[in-house]
Amino acid sequence: MSELRVIDVNVGIFDANNRIAEETRRENRSSGTFLVNLMASPGAGKSTTLLRTISMLKDKYRIGVMEADIDSVVDAEKMARAGVGTIQVHTGGECAMDASMTSEAIKEFGGRDYDLLFLENVGNLVCPAEQDVGASLNVEILSIPEGDDKPLKYPLMFEVCQCVLINKIDAREFFSFDDEKVKERILARNPQAKIFFVSAKTGEGFADWVAYLEEEMAKDKAAV
Amino acid sequence: MSELRVIDVNVGIFDANNRIAEETRRENRSSGTFLVNLMASPGAGKSTTLLRTISMLKDKYRIGVMEADIDSVVDAEKMARAGVGTIQVHTGGECAMDASMTSEAIKEFGGRDYDLLFLENVGNLVCPAEQDVGASLNVEILSIPEGDDKPLKYPLMFEVCQCVLINKIDAREFFSFDDEKVKERILARNPQAKIFFVSAKTGEGFADWVAYLEEEMAKDKAAV
Repeated sequence: MSELRVIDVNVGIFDANNRIAEETRRENRSSGTFLVNLMASPGAGKSTTLLRTISMLKDKYRIGVMEADIDSVVDAEKMARAGVGTIQVHTGGECAMDASMTSEAIKEFGGRDYDLLFLENVGNLVCPAEQDVGASLNVEILSIPEGDDKPLKYPLMFEVCQCVLINKIDAREFFSFDDEKVKERILARNPQAKIFFVSAKTGEGFADWVAYLEEEMAKDKAAV
Repeated sequence: MSELRVIDVNVGIFDANNRIAEETRRENRSSGTFLVNLMASPGAGKSTTLLRTISMLKDKYRIGVMEADIDSVVDAEKMARAGVGTIQVHTGGECAMDASMTSEAIKEFGGRDYDLLFLENVGNLVCPAEQDVGASLNVEILSIPEGDDKPLKYPLMFEVCQCVLINKIDAREFFSFDDEKVKERILARNPQAKIFFVSAKTGEGFADWVAYLEEEMAKDKAAV
């Protein structure tokens, strides 16, 4: 085994936007809007998860979607076709939404007319974890093809999320992915994390995830 | 179809580090070191691709690997077991390596004693694209499960890479992925891009990719 050394080259500090995030959370709560911040790697299935979740809840709640991307309107068009109010936010190269961009987007969108507002964040496991956008619930989607070591490599993401969806379980036989190990690694970072194994393609596991989401919405309402 | 609006909230400018990147490229070339910057989403198969590439070239060249991660030494340990010189670089929360971090890592590592030096960048399609690290070759690995729309959503990444490896083609039957569409979308952004369809798991397509890599190394040497 060759020599292995570890060096630390930089320390980034991100806390300037927490005040705005708290303000957003307060305003959302008082107007009865529950904001979910969906985060994941590119291609982990954020849009497909969102579309299935919307189809299960759209007769019950007024749902709006904010799609954050560097470029393109691919996802926003999908959401609009699903019949929910949608806004596309271009971050102009920024690798994540921050609290002020989110607050601006909510206002522009008239977002507080919705019961349930989803922010599909930029596909990325690093920057979005560093920016509190003022969501009521932070959700990370980790897909089976990405591997079970991601909580070791992107620890902050798994710390800041209250809920982790392990997606693409229908493709399980093609990839080596250890369910117990991934749970252990997530819970080591975040003992309170709720973990659901789902397939946005087949719908497996969605009843539990959606029930959890509705419970969290009810708790938030009761807290006013 | 519901209404769809597009707003631009921010414009990021990144060019401060180009001078250092040019300097790195010049020094590498004059010392006969070819630096490859490997970029991809988390879980696209950077490490597996690297391990297979190394196994095919390690008797021919002196190879070194710099593993950039937010945290953990998972990948660096794999590389060290493969018998190549390895350094783990912790970016301290930063979502990509920049030119000065790379230059510092090369010096710390004694990297110019190598013919071929790989930088496995942080798993991310946004930030690494914005930072010229001074590599001789920039390679993006896009994996089949991520979907063929990624060149639309992360255009800069596909513009700055000379070569794109489409990985995990062994898992193709499980995912809808259009080879022609992805090629079209990459070439629309970057008409000179070399595209290889590979499986780091089975080795399919690797002969072509490795031959290309060796050609590029030879061209760089001839340019001194």
